Amino acid sequence: MKFTTYLRDDGATRLAVVDGDDLIDLNDADAQVPADLRAALRTGTDLHAAARSALETGKRKPLKTAKLAPLVPEPGKTICLGLNYFDHAKEGGREKPDYPWFFFRGASSLIAHGDAGVVPSVSSKFDYEAELAVVIGRKVPRHTKETDALQYVFGYACFNDMSVRDYQKRTPQWTIGKNFDGTGGFGPVLVTADELPPGAVGLKIQGRLNGEVMQDANTSDMIFNVAETIALLADVLTLEPGDVLVMGTPAGVGQARTPPVWMKAGDTYDVEIERIGVLSNPIVNEAS
Amino acid sequence: MKFTTYLRDDGATRLAVVDGDDLIDLNDADAQVPADLRAALRTGTDLHAAARSALETGKRKPLKTAKLAPLVPEPGKTICLGLNYFDHAKEGGREKPDYPWFFFRGASSLIAHGDAGVVPSVSSKFDYEAELAVVIGRKVPRHTKETDALQYVFGYACFNDMSVRDYQKRTPQWTIGKNFDGTGGFGPVLVTADELPPGAVGLKIQGRLNGEVMQDANTSDMIFNVAETIALLADVLTLEPGDVLVMGTPAGVGQARTPPVWMKAGDTYDVEIERIGVLSNPIVNEAS
Repeated sequence: MKFTTYLRDDGATRLAVVDGDDLIDLNDADAQVPADLRAALRTGTDLHAAARSALETGKRKPLKTAKLAPLVPEPGKTICLGLNYFDHAKEGGREKPDYPWFFFRGASSLIAHGDAGVVPSVSSKFDYEAELAVVIGRKVPRHTKETDALQYVFGYACFNDMSVRDYQKRTPQWTIGKNFDGTGGFGPVLVTADELPPGAVGLKIQGRLNGEVMQDANTSDMIFNVAETIALLADVLTLEPGDVLVMGTPAGVGQARTPPVWMKAGDTYDVEIERIGVLSNPIVNEAS
Repeated sequence: MKFTTYLRDDGATRLAVVDGDDLIDLNDADAQVPADLRAALRTGTDLHAAARSALETGKRKPLKTAKLAPLVPEPGKTICLGLNYFDHAKEGGREKPDYPWFFFRGASSLIAHGDAGVVPSVSSKFDYEAELAVVIGRKVPRHTKETDALQYVFGYACFNDMSVRDYQKRTPQWTIGKNFDGTGGFGPVLVTADELPPGAVGLKIQGRLNGEVMQDANTSDMIFNVAETIALLADVLTLEPGDVLVMGTPAGVGQARTPPVWMKAGDTYDVEIERIGVLSNPIVNEAS
C-alpha cells in the first residue's frame, strides 16, 4: 500500500492512498479517518482497511497534478543519523562510528516532493544527501529489542537531507546546518512495511544531480540498520506514532568532491530508492 | 500576567491564567480560547484579554494542588543553546563560542514542574542545568534584526535541561544525551514579556540540589542574549508561535565538579529565576 499527503486547494494537508496514477483522499472517503498521517497513526486508525475501502468507493484524482506536502507534515520528532554509511564517513575523513551521530530536524525544515530546496541567502554551500526515511506507526515501548523493533514501523519513504555545510560546521553541533527552511525533502509516497523487505534492506538508493548519478549505494550498506536504530533509541526515549527516522546518506556528497559541488538555482536533485519511488526537488535561491 | 498548563482529571492538558494561589482555566471561562498554549498562540488569540476576562468571571482552582504539564506540551521546536554562559564554557574546558551551539529537544523529553526527572537505567551520569526558557508568541519573519526581535516573545519560564552526560558525549552530537524521556523540566509558570525587563536580562538565576546552591548567576551573563539568538535563528529558519528557546546554563554543573556530582533518586533540583518562579523536580530511577 502506498500513501501520500497532498495540499488541497484550501491549503489543508490531506492524507491519501495512492493507486497507480491516482490518489484517493481517505477522509473524503470516510470522515472517520483523520486527514493527517500522524493523527491517523496516533488514534490507531487501521489505515490498510481505510485504504482498501477508499480504493473501492473513493473519488480519484490524478497524482501527477496534485500539489504534495511533506508525508508527515508535523512529525513529533524527526531523528536523523549522521555517518551511517561507512563510505560516506570515510569520504568525510571520519572513522566508522560505534554509535549513531543523532541530530534532530524541526518540521519547519520539511518540504514535499516537487517543492523547491532553498539555497539560503547566508550561504552557498548547499549540499544534497539521499536517504531512507522510516515512519513509526505505533508507540515503541522503552527498551524494545532489535529483534522486536520492526513491528513498530509503518512504512518507508525517500528523504533528501539537504545540508548547509558551513553552518553545519560553525560549531561541533550539526543541528543548525540541518534545519534551514526548505531543506528536508520528504516524499512523494510512503510504502508500507509489508510491501518491502524487513527493515527495507537490500534496496538500491541513488541520488542524481540534474540526472547525473552522484550517490549510488544499497540500504544494506548502513552501519546501523533500522531495527538496531530503533532499539538504540528505545534505550533513550519514546518513539511515537508519526515520528520519523532519517537513516543517513551514502558517499558522493558535494562537499567531499574535488572541487566541491554545491547545488544552485536551476538544479534538480532526485533521490530514488528501489521499490519506494523518486523524490525530486528543484533548487531555487531564497527570495530576497 | 502569568500562565500555566495543567492536567485535568481526564488527562487533558489545559491552559490557565495564574492569579496568586489560584489558576483559572481559560477554555472553561471562554470556549473560544484554545485549551493549548501553542494552539492559542498559533490562532492569534489575545491571551491577555482572555486572561483578564477569565480573572473576572472564571472558576478558581488552587494552583498548589493542581497537577501541571509542560508549559507548552508539544512545541513545534524546542531549540537549546549550549555553552551560552562563559563561566560554564570555561568549566567544561571550552573557549567562548562565536556562534551558539544549537541542538534540539523533542517534546517526548519534556516534563512539568513537580514531575520526576528520571535517572535512566542505562546511565548514572545524570546532571542538572538551570536555564531560562523563551516562548515565541508570533511567527518571526526570516532575517528579523536583533533590534526587532523581542516583539515576537510571548514570555519566559524556568527550564531544567537535565543531561545524560555519557550519552551526550558518545559522539560529538550532544542531541541524544539531551533527549531522554523525563529530562526537560519546563514550568511551573510563564511570565509574559511585558512584566519583565526586555529580553529578561538582569535576572538572578539559581540552581539548587536538595536546597544547596549549585548554580548562581544572572541572565545578563549570557553570551548570546535572547534578541541576538532570535536574530541568528531568523537567518536560518522560521520560528513559529509556541516554539521554545532554552538559553543555556551557567557554571556549577555536576560533571565539572571534583568529584563529579550526579543526581540520584531521592534528590530534588530547583531552578529559580528572579521574578519568574521556581521549577522543582524530584529525581527518581527509571521504573524497571
